[in-house]
Amino acid sequence: MAEQSPLVVFTPSGKRGRFAVGTPILTAARQLGVDLDSVCGGRGICSKCQITPGVGEFSKHGVTVAPDALSEWNAVEERYDQIRGLKPGRRLGCQATVQSDVVIDVPPESQVHKQVVRKAAAARDIVMDPATRLFYVEVAEPDMHEPTGDFERLEKALKSQWEIDGIRADVTLLAKLQKVLRKGSWKVTVALHRDHQATKSSIVDIWPGLHEAGLFGLAVDLGSTTIAAHLTDLETGEVKTSSGIMNPQIRFGEDLMSRVSYAMMNPGGEVEMTAAVRDALNTLAGEIAAEAGIDPALIVETVFVCNPVMHHLLLGIDPVELGQAPFALATSDSVTLPARDLGLSVLNARAQCYILPCIAGHVGADAAGVALSEEPGKSEDLALMVDVGTNAEILLGDTSRVLACSSPTGPAFEGAQISSGQRAAPGAIEAIRIDPETKEPRFRVIGCDLWSNEDGFATATAATGITGICGSGIIEAVAEMRLASLLDPSGLIGSAAQTGTPRSVPEGRTHAYLIHDASAEGGPRITVTQGDIRAIQLAKSALYAGARLLMDTRGVDTVDRVVLAGAFGAHISPLHAMVLGMIPDVPLDKVTSAGNAAWHRRTYRAVQCCGAGGNRTGGAPDHQGRNRDRAEVPGAFRQCQCHPACH
Amino acid sequence: MAEQSPLVVFTPSGKRGRFAVGTPILTAARQLGVDLDSVCGGRGICSKCQITPGVGEFSKHGVTVAPDALSEWNAVEERYDQIRGLKPGRRLGCQATVQSDVVIDVPPESQVHKQVVRKAAAARDIVMDPATRLFYVEVAEPDMHEPTGDFERLEKALKSQWEIDGIRADVTLLAKLQKVLRKGSWKVTVALHRDHQATKSSIVDIWPGLHEAGLFGLAVDLGSTTIAAHLTDLETGEVKTSSGIMNPQIRFGEDLMSRVSYAMMNPGGEVEMTAAVRDALNTLAGEIAAEAGIDPALIVETVFVCNPVMHHLLLGIDPVELGQAPFALATSDSVTLPARDLGLSVLNARAQCYILPCIAGHVGADAAGVALSEEPGKSEDLALMVDVGTNAEILLGDTSRVLACSSPTGPAFEGAQISSGQRAAPGAIEAIRIDPETKEPRFRVIGCDLWSNEDGFATATAATGITGICGSGIIEAVAEMRLASLLDPSGLIGSAAQTGTPRSVPEGRTHAYLIHDASAEGGPRITVTQGDIRAIQLAKSALYAGARLLMDTRGVDTVDRVVLAGAFGAHISPLHAMVLGMIPDVPLDKVTSAGNAAWHRRTYRAVQCCGAGGNRTGGAPDHQGRNRDRAEVPGAFRQCQCHPACH
Repeated sequence: MAEQSPLVVFTPSGKRGRFAVGTPILTAARQLGVDLDSVCGGRGICSKCQITPGVGEFSKHGVTVAPDALSEWNAVEERYDQIRGLKPGRRLGCQATVQSDVVIDVPPESQVHKQVVRKAAAARDIVMDPATRLFYVEVAEPDMHEPTGDFERLEKALKSQWEIDGIRADVTLLAKLQKVLRKGSWKVTVALHRDHQATKSSIVDIWPGLHEAGLFGLAVDLGSTTIAAHLTDLETGEVKTSSGIMNPQIRFGEDLMSRVSYAMMNPGGEVEMTAAVRDALNTLAGEIAAEAGIDPALIVETVFVCNPVMHHLLLGIDPVELGQAPFALATSDSVTLPARDLGLSVLNARAQCYILPCIAGHVGADAAGVALSEEPGKSEDLALMVDVGTNAEILLGDTSRVLACSSPTGPAFEGAQISSGQRAAPGAIEAIRIDPETKEPRFRVIGCDLWSNEDGFATATAATGITGICGSGIIEAVAEMRLASLLDPSGLIGSAAQTGTPRSVPEGRTHAYLIHDASAEGGPRITVTQGDIRAIQLAKSALYAGARLLMDTRGVDTVDRVVLAGAFGAHISPLHAMVLGMIPDVPLDKVTSAGNAAWHRRTYRAVQCCGAGGNRTGGAPDHQGRNRDRAEVPGAFRQCQCHPACH
Repeated sequence: MAEQSPLVVFTPSGKRGRFAVGTPILTAARQLGVDLDSVCGGRGICSKCQITPGVGEFSKHGVTVAPDALSEWNAVEERYDQIRGLKPGRRLGCQATVQSDVVIDVPPESQVHKQVVRKAAAARDIVMDPATRLFYVEVAEPDMHEPTGDFERLEKALKSQWEIDGIRADVTLLAKLQKVLRKGSWKVTVALHRDHQATKSSIVDIWPGLHEAGLFGLAVDLGSTTIAAHLTDLETGEVKTSSGIMNPQIRFGEDLMSRVSYAMMNPGGEVEMTAAVRDALNTLAGEIAAEAGIDPALIVETVFVCNPVMHHLLLGIDPVELGQAPFALATSDSVTLPARDLGLSVLNARAQCYILPCIAGHVGADAAGVALSEEPGKSEDLALMVDVGTNAEILLGDTSRVLACSSPTGPAFEGAQISSGQRAAPGAIEAIRIDPETKEPRFRVIGCDLWSNEDGFATATAATGITGICGSGIIEAVAEMRLASLLDPSGLIGSAAQTGTPRSVPEGRTHAYLIHDASAEGGPRITVTQGDIRAIQLAKSALYAGARLLMDTRGVDTVDRVVLAGAFGAHISPLHAMVLGMIPDVPLDKVTSAGNAAWHRRTYRAVQCCGAGGNRTGGAPDHQGRNRDRAEVPGAFRQCQCHPACH
């Protein structure tokens, strides 16, 4: 019997097979379907295919590995090690060849579909599978005897070297193609974006030689009041930078219906609002790229979540139909289009922008984002998920059925409509406690970890001062005032005589609670007024009504758990939210936060979305909390009769 | 045995089948695959499905048709007849139903794939199969209980009413969708453009109700010196209007290589040239639409032919690689893109622009157009096809093999470089004869059918005057001068003493031949100078050299026939072209003209292309006729070593 070919076992996958002596490890991995990355296709250039061979006995695999199970360290590896450095024990999978039975470990960073583990408490793991990937190719030079175009020879190279068919390139890519091919001496790296069906790939960009500056994705939460964005490394999954900006559409109306009205009353109003939000997105993208120190043209993918009105205005669609029953969306499916069609000139012109689908007339891509990241449909117990912004997205469900609605809470929870309200910035009060006995407050401001009654607080906050109250601060303040009996059950602030504290100060015909007074030194006097209480009451009742509506439809009086999704969850105290009546009563340990990062997990895409930045800001609108839409997700979507005919 | 269902026989197709009593004729036609048009899908709105039922005995089909073989004339037909009028004997196929055996004639205008018979002598028939067609649909209204988007309901309607899947719409279409649906009370007409694989359809536009203003295509011959365009009705195939304009890129260089040099020498030069040609195309499209009295937004398709340099500059691609060996094209395949990506803002923004493929570095989409329309590969005898412009496209071949090359003749044949040259406009001499005995000329000018020696010529031309010589005129003039022995074999114009006519006038150190002298009345003095002869000699030798090169490659000394393709063929006298030595000698009856219309016959597209307007114009460049490329078409393309390294 002829001697068998050597056995190659890959870990952690456990995939195994026999290969002829001399087979490169990368080749063996490909034939077995082992997830081993390579951009250069085995040319010893990109170093993505690093592996760690084992030596000794692997009883679990029934293999004993000899020290010379792989070919000797070669010149390509030596050169790479000298220039870039290889970790001890590492080999290049395209260089090392099989000599005898061997066990090969593929380290996480060499996997395309690598697991990204987030450090933050509430975040979750995702498996990377980016829609846009790099491919290094060597293109045949033009020849008088083969008069095909440069693009057609690039197509052929991608087909023969990567087995990729159906390549498309737009005219802006064709315009730069020839220079790049020649600059790279016919060796280039292309970024290919696979479409949803993975049947066509568009060339997003092309670089001479091996492109090593990375690829980035921008995940954008386009809210009515604020726009938050996260810049993500598409190779590692790492979030490089997060940033936010006010939505400049606020000048056209502070809530959604005001903006719809603006479009109805002003010819071309929707065009103005579209231009405003696109300008802001360009500014934000420019800032975030600068902060991360990358060329914004390396941003080759974006994902957007937003409510339907923001969705339509981003796309340049008049939102007028969303202002009246039956609240028809122009389109409810997801939308994919190049950045230049969205006027996002700061990004790569060919960056693919993906906008999540909308669920119903006022249940938007933001709610779809919560459904996608929090997966209520996979919950064994009945979960209520709340993502608060100027508009709240609310989902209720379990494995049997999921309901969704939106509720226009107005921006009070974002610190707007509040007399001492301000956006979340150093100096803003973000947490507060009131002693039920003395009625004295202590608080923390953004930029300092100390409480105001702790030693060193004055020194630590000297630079920023104490400037106002942000969204999370006002929620805690109102709840603490109720706990300290500074408010009666109707929300009326008692006088100094009633409360027994001089911090109850007259304010017109009502009273206010004085948290901090620096007026003697020319600083601000920070109070919670009766008007602030009423604003928070309206907002929390709108939010609660939305949740209650879903519970009624579901026929339940209680839920098993509550998830505070999005940025809201990262900063709000669940106890205070419950005291305030924002969310239904559940045991406190059943309230969890989805944290500052809701991850978007599409099959072959890994860009962070539905994110932070939405709750700690300022402004000053007014809203009645009467708009509500409800729909069932996923499966047959349903919308209730309770709707926004009130504006 | 039960009685059989009635037999329905369609003419001219001969398709037949049995259908239940009461089946509409349109339904029967669809089931049999008979080509019977319908935009409204059988709703009695569009009248495209008109048919003519026969009565009596049809022995050929073995059918006797009773007078009541179809259902009675109904109210829908009556209303249509009163408002629009139906031809006698016509019925609406969607209204008339089968009662007994019947023979149904489908008139040509009711066929989608109608045969278009061109009246002009040299034109050919084409079968209409437009890529863009109209579909009338009734879309479900939005409903609170079915919260899908308007676009998704339109998709569903197209699927259920027309069995069309895979609909795409860009964001500009989405932006107008909602208003149009409501304006049309949920009844709309969409123009759908099928892609090459016919798997996806893009919505090019949408109109409320039944759209009756038609759809138009623009076929553009983008030449170095002139741009010609034909506006075609995409339903009937009729050419509504043709028009031309100078290519404003002339100011950057009069021949291709000068423009490539301009791009090389001037940073951003290619951007300037791209902007110039796109501006001209917008002007031309606007003019042609105005002349035809149509809204230019109804132009939903365009087809372009052009040489590779024009091709690259149209697309915004730097043509620098076409200025040096190996003359690599950025892309050689056909290109399809929306009008807005070409900056053609006058057309429908979503109009699909199709640019024919290029064959080789200097054998372009214009040569591909000649190959497509003249089909040398289907010729039984060896045919030489010549399409002259500033650059000549030359094809030689038969069923066994086809060779193609281009030759830079310069614009002399277009009346440029000629002392009395002018563009083809009223007043230009377009034909000339010189009496060999008297050496006296007679001529015809554009705008008048009389010869200059005929009665009434002076009166008939009083308005325009006699202003110069256009391209066809100069070719005839030089050939006639040679036939009348005014030139020696080398092309030298003889003196009055040598030629015996006072029309031989001194011109510097050489002589000129005086055709017309109106200088006494302050009018022009029209001569053919020695310089003109030299310019024509250079141009004709470049052209002949190209043809000769192909003949040498093919190993032949003669060809069986010559086709003068494109606009050139419509105006040039074959005899004079042969006297001049522009084309190889063949019997005069073997020289045919492809006329003023070369038709583009793609499988599902019928827009006229590769057309007129290119030869009768003015300008003033200079060219040496040294550039030549050669390639074999179709099949394996080959390019020879003889190439444009001369600039």
